[in-house]
Amino acid sequence: MASGQSEFDAEISVEPAEGRPGAYVGSFGDGWRIGNGVNGGVIMCLATTALQRRLDLDGAHGDPLAFSGFFLTPSGPGPVEATTEVLRVGRTMSTGQVSVAQPGPDGALVERMRALASFGDLDASASVLQTAAPPDMPPPEDCISSTDAPEFLAAATLLDRIEIRLDPATAGWVGGRPSGRGEMRGWLRLRDGRDPDPVMLLFALDALPPVAFNLGILGWAPTLEFTGHVRGRPAPGWLRVSLSSQNITAGLMEEDATVWDSEGRFVAQSRQLCGIRTPRSAN
Amino acid sequence: MASGQSEFDAEISVEPAEGRPGAYVGSFGDGWRIGNGVNGGVIMCLATTALQRRLDLDGAHGDPLAFSGFFLTPSGPGPVEATTEVLRVGRTMSTGQVSVAQPGPDGALVERMRALASFGDLDASASVLQTAAPPDMPPPEDCISSTDAPEFLAAATLLDRIEIRLDPATAGWVGGRPSGRGEMRGWLRLRDGRDPDPVMLLFALDALPPVAFNLGILGWAPTLEFTGHVRGRPAPGWLRVSLSSQNITAGLMEEDATVWDSEGRFVAQSRQLCGIRTPRSAN
Repeated sequence: MASGQSEFDAEISVEPAEGRPGAYVGSFGDGWRIGNGVNGGVIMCLATTALQRRLDLDGAHGDPLAFSGFFLTPSGPGPVEATTEVLRVGRTMSTGQVSVAQPGPDGALVERMRALASFGDLDASASVLQTAAPPDMPPPEDCISSTDAPEFLAAATLLDRIEIRLDPATAGWVGGRPSGRGEMRGWLRLRDGRDPDPVMLLFALDALPPVAFNLGILGWAPTLEFTGHVRGRPAPGWLRVSLSSQNITAGLMEEDATVWDSEGRFVAQSRQLCGIRTPRSAN
Repeated sequence: MASGQSEFDAEISVEPAEGRPGAYVGSFGDGWRIGNGVNGGVIMCLATTALQRRLDLDGAHGDPLAFSGFFLTPSGPGPVEATTEVLRVGRTMSTGQVSVAQPGPDGALVERMRALASFGDLDASASVLQTAAPPDMPPPEDCISSTDAPEFLAAATLLDRIEIRLDPATAGWVGGRPSGRGEMRGWLRLRDGRDPDPVMLLFALDALPPVAFNLGILGWAPTLEFTGHVRGRPAPGWLRVSLSSQNITAGLMEEDATVWDSEGRFVAQSRQLCGIRTPRSAN
C-alpha cells in the first residue's frame, strides 16, 4: 500500500489552520492508544508532517534526519494543533520547531510536546562506510505475536494497528518470566500493509513494548525526551527493531532503539529518557 | 576549586539583559575554540546556565537531566545572547527552551543554536538498578596527553583549558595511524582544577577529539544535533569518557559518549549526529 492511503497516514495528517500562518490542525483517533494516552510515535509523526508542510519540504530534502521531542503532558484522542517555526532553511538541510497542543478541560490549549527537527535528503549520498549488523532472530512466523501479550496490554488499541513479532529469546515477560536483561527485539509492520518510509521510522523507533518489561518493571514508563535519527530510506516490508537499556538510575532509564529494513540495512536509531517506578520505589 | 571561581564558570555565565525578560547576555572568550568556532559544549553549558536562571532553579531540582540542541550556524568569540522560554514547571521537573544568538556582520542577531532542556533533582532517588561499567584503561599518567596531539589541533585553544589523557589503545590517530575502529576513550579534567558538576558533564560529553579521527576522517565534523542525559552527580576528580560510533552513512555519523566519575560511577551519556566528509566524498 502506498503512503497516503493508510490509516497511519490519516492519523498523522494535518491541514493548515485558517488565518493562522504556521499552525496546522489534525485529530488523534481512538485507535492508537497505549492505555489512555496516544502513542508517542504518532505524536512525533504528526509533528514531523506539520513541519514538512511548513518548510515546504515535499520535494527537495524533505526527509526527517533528526527529531528531538520533549513530552510535557499526556496526549489523548481528539483535536490536536501543531504550531511551527522555521529556524533555518539551507541548501541541503532545514531545521524547524514544532509545538503540539490539545484543548484542555476548559478549552484552552495545553502543550503536549515541544520538538526540534532537521530535514535533508537521504539519497544525497549513497556512501556507507560502516553500520551495525541486524540482529540474528527467527523469522516472523516463529516469533511471539503481540496478540499473545498479557491482558494488561489489552487497553492498547495501538496493537490493533501494528503487527509485532518478538524474538522468543527476549519475550520472557510475555509469559510472566522477564529475562532480567535490558534487551528486546522483534519484527514490526503496520497491519494495513502501509510500507515504511522515513517518517514512519520515527514511529517504528517507539512502537515496541518498553524494554523495561524485561527487567520486571511493568508500570507506565513515560517518555521525557526522545531523539531519533533517520539514516536510510527503508525498503518495503517488515522492519527489525532492537531495544536495549544499560542504565537504570534514580527513577530514570534510557531506551535505545535501532531499526533495520527488510533487506537488513540499518535505517534509524533513537535514544529516549524515560521515567520509571522501580520495584523499590513503586512500593 | 569550587564552581563559580573558575575560568569555565566565567565562560558560561550570563546576566539578565536589561529590560528584556527571559533574555540573558554573556561573552565567549577566545580560549575555548576548536579552529575558528567556539566548542559546542561551552555553548550548551551557557544555554543551560541561562535556563537555570530563567526557571529559578538554583535550589530545588536545578540539575540538568536532558538537553537537546540543534546547531544552526557556527559560533565565534564575542558577545552572546540566550533567550529563554518556560515550557513547564512541575513539582519535580521543569522544562524550558533556549535560543543562543550572536551579532552577525551587520549587527543583527544570528541564531547559533536552539535547544530544549529538562531539569530535576539528581539526588531525588539514590536507587541504581544497573549501569554500564567504566572502561578498563591505564591510569592518566600512562595515557597520551592532548599536548602530544598533531599540529592540526594547535588551533584549538580549548586544549589549553582542559587536560585529556587518551588510552593509547584508542589513540593511534595521534601518531598518524588511525585504528579504523569507531572508538576512543580517555581521562578528562579542567586544567584549572574546577571539579565536575552536572552542568560541566554536558561539556565533558563533547570535549574529546571526534571519534571520527580513529576512522581516518580528520576534517571538520560539525554537530547537527546533540542530546545529552545527566544521570548522576559526579565525584570530584578525573572523568573517564568513552566515545563510539557504529554507523557512517550518507555523509552522517553518530557519536555516542558515556562519562564515569573518579569513583567509577556512570554519570552521563550522549548521542550526537555529525556531518562528515568521508574520504570518498572529500575528493
